[in-house]
Amino acid sequence: MEPQSTPRIAQQLAFLVEADKLKNVLRRTTLTDRSRQENSAEHSWHLALTAMVLEEYAASPVNMAKVLRMLAVHDVVEIDAGDTFAYDAAGNATKEEREKRAADRIFGLLPTDVAPELRALWEEFEQAVTPEARFANAVDRVQPFLQNRAAGGGTWRTPNLSREQVLARMDLVRANLPRLWPTILATLDKFFPK
Amino acid sequence: MEPQSTPRIAQQLAFLVEADKLKNVLRRTTLTDRSRQENSAEHSWHLALTAMVLEEYAASPVNMAKVLRMLAVHDVVEIDAGDTFAYDAAGNATKEEREKRAADRIFGLLPTDVAPELRALWEEFEQAVTPEARFANAVDRVQPFLQNRAAGGGTWRTPNLSREQVLARMDLVRANLPRLWPTILATLDKFFPK
Repeated sequence: MEPQSTPRIAQQLAFLVEADKLKNVLRRTTLTDRSRQENSAEHSWHLALTAMVLEEYAASPVNMAKVLRMLAVHDVVEIDAGDTFAYDAAGNATKEEREKRAADRIFGLLPTDVAPELRALWEEFEQAVTPEARFANAVDRVQPFLQNRAAGGGTWRTPNLSREQVLARMDLVRANLPRLWPTILATLDKFFPK
Repeated sequence: MEPQSTPRIAQQLAFLVEADKLKNVLRRTTLTDRSRQENSAEHSWHLALTAMVLEEYAASPVNMAKVLRMLAVHDVVEIDAGDTFAYDAAGNATKEEREKRAADRIFGLLPTDVAPELRALWEEFEQAVTPEARFANAVDRVQPFLQNRAAGGGTWRTPNLSREQVLARMDLVRANLPRLWPTILATLDKFFPK
């Protein structure tokens, strides 16, 4: 780091350079043209845009600055912990522990007065209790839904994946973006006939 | 589109599916590990995170909700217009016209009552006059700076690129993130000795 950077600026820039690695974390979901897997950085951007466009359907009013900040950090821990596929039971059993260690290291790159704020946004997202976190988590269900639908099935084609598993995963949308639910259900009825 | 979607929802979802294409728009900048070019979608996410971390250095106070919304849409026109390299004089001569046509089509996918709002955010970014747009544009200079620095030069190695061209491009940082300027200058002094 240049001597001209204060230690504070050096820490902030080091965090931002580390964040670049999220572009190499691959999700199971593909692009709509099926050309490759989506990475967690571009996915995070797509969620921000989805939140902006679907805000009018939120079940409760939300503070959009908080939602957008939360979505920007929600997957950063995957730099160390990797993306855990929604329907991977074994992976999900160890997800919390792996992600907590990742959060310690990655948010720990920031100055100590700002690290807790960003980490708290990630924790709020994970707990999915506040209106902003519930809305953000619902948006995190709708975006892969749209990718799968446009790609002709996508991760819904995972062997042995049941209608019940997908409905359980999508239930956050029913609760937090209720006016989108008929659209979701119509598509899932087609891919997973009753 | 499913009959269960209202026409309004169908338009909003069509816009979000179209937005997926930004993940295939490649920039000249590479990832810090130089493994591949960066795309405009993951770049947009990285700008959001950069804005959050560097907000304390903004020359004027900014409305962060507006900044984050602006950054989410600032490159969407590239789906049609492509990424225009900062130091491509011929490309920049036609950029405005190409991007206006792209904005007509892409924001035009949205319902007519919300399209103007998102388009206005993009125009505000392009005009770079308001505090939010000036800050967002400065952030859009800092992030590729960090990528280039970490990658050992990156696009600064473009043949015939001069110190003056890079300094002119980075001047927005001097004006809008003044406390970062010594760091920027120290790095540029190393890559482009006086």
